[in-house]
Amino acid sequence: MSKIEIIQGILDANEATATGNRAVFDKNDCLAVNVMSAPGAGKTSFILRTIEALSADTRIGVIEGDVVSTVDAEKVHDVAQAVIQINTKGMPESCALVADMVHVALQRMPIEDLDLVLIENVGNLLCPTEFDLGEHLKVVITSTPEGHDKPLKYPVIFAQADALIINKADLLPYVDFDMEEFTRTVRNLNASVQFFPLSCKTGEGVAEWATWLRDQRQRR
Amino acid sequence: MSKIEIIQGILDANEATATGNRAVFDKNDCLAVNVMSAPGAGKTSFILRTIEALSADTRIGVIEGDVVSTVDAEKVHDVAQAVIQINTKGMPESCALVADMVHVALQRMPIEDLDLVLIENVGNLLCPTEFDLGEHLKVVITSTPEGHDKPLKYPVIFAQADALIINKADLLPYVDFDMEEFTRTVRNLNASVQFFPLSCKTGEGVAEWATWLRDQRQRR
Repeated sequence: MSKIEIIQGILDANEATATGNRAVFDKNDCLAVNVMSAPGAGKTSFILRTIEALSADTRIGVIEGDVVSTVDAEKVHDVAQAVIQINTKGMPESCALVADMVHVALQRMPIEDLDLVLIENVGNLLCPTEFDLGEHLKVVITSTPEGHDKPLKYPVIFAQADALIINKADLLPYVDFDMEEFTRTVRNLNASVQFFPLSCKTGEGVAEWATWLRDQRQRR
Repeated sequence: MSKIEIIQGILDANEATATGNRAVFDKNDCLAVNVMSAPGAGKTSFILRTIEALSADTRIGVIEGDVVSTVDAEKVHDVAQAVIQINTKGMPESCALVADMVHVALQRMPIEDLDLVLIENVGNLLCPTEFDLGEHLKVVITSTPEGHDKPLKYPVIFAQADALIINKADLLPYVDFDMEEFTRTVRNLNASVQFFPLSCKTGEGVAEWATWLRDQRQRR
């Protein structure tokens, strides 16, 4: 009984902080996107491609969540307007970003000068589903080598996604990934999600995603 | 303060149950292997290949850990001596198997008739590092499309591994995976780990892994 109360307390506190983060994003007319995936699906490459596609007319900040290391932040450093690295450290906190980490990052970013903040979550298909960060959109990346059965095994994250990136489309000839079955399974969980098959390696399909994201920003 | 004490309590209880599980495996002369990886790295295909390689002279049981669904257990059902599916259900328990789940599974398995139990953990590179299940060996699967930087980002699981499977070796011509850099990074974390590059799709390299695993069993 006491365990449930404590967890409830953490989630309630997280929700309050997330609401505060969202108010900061809104006040500064800045779209916030939570980017989630399994390890190795290509979150950092996807963020780099998104910056490349939008940077001509969009000022972009990146919050990099990792358990340890700054390798991702270093990759993004030269192309984003602002980058903050969050190291979540050890378990149990390490398995996802939480709203408070984003709150601290926002105090160190020139949020008033940004149009878009991309938040790279920790590579994990389970823990991030629990923690609202204050984002406006949730983007889930799956990659073709992971197989088309992932929505059956990790349904919550697929049900929460506003946009679903199917990365590593260039590997489709070499892997067993049934796009039709995948799409059908996701549609059963989530009627409104937008699908974007693309390849961060070749750049194929990135333009369609970038157009949609720009449109999302202009609608707000 | 109270939060830390509660988590400590859970881990202490887990360790006690894991020790009990290990005693059951030992008493029955049964080798227990904890199979861990990111989602989509190929844990189930790897277990199927391992059964195929060893089943002529080894009686194998499988414990399948999944958040939801029985898709993996169904795939293994026809080839293993015994299969138990564990659904870990919702967060926060869902992010890894814990010793108590294995304890319950062991009560439902004919452990006295098994030589080897393969435990497929939940797809996650973070949470499983916290929970000893009572296994003798930890096997971590990484797959070439995930990239060679995973040990930098998830060092604990790579440091804990007794054997490291580098799956999807058939995709090496199509992905950016520097085997030398990967091996060097892992070696810095873990001097004694055994490397097995292989492809569960083609079967290439599986024999070397199976020989090593058979040898591990005979040494006990």
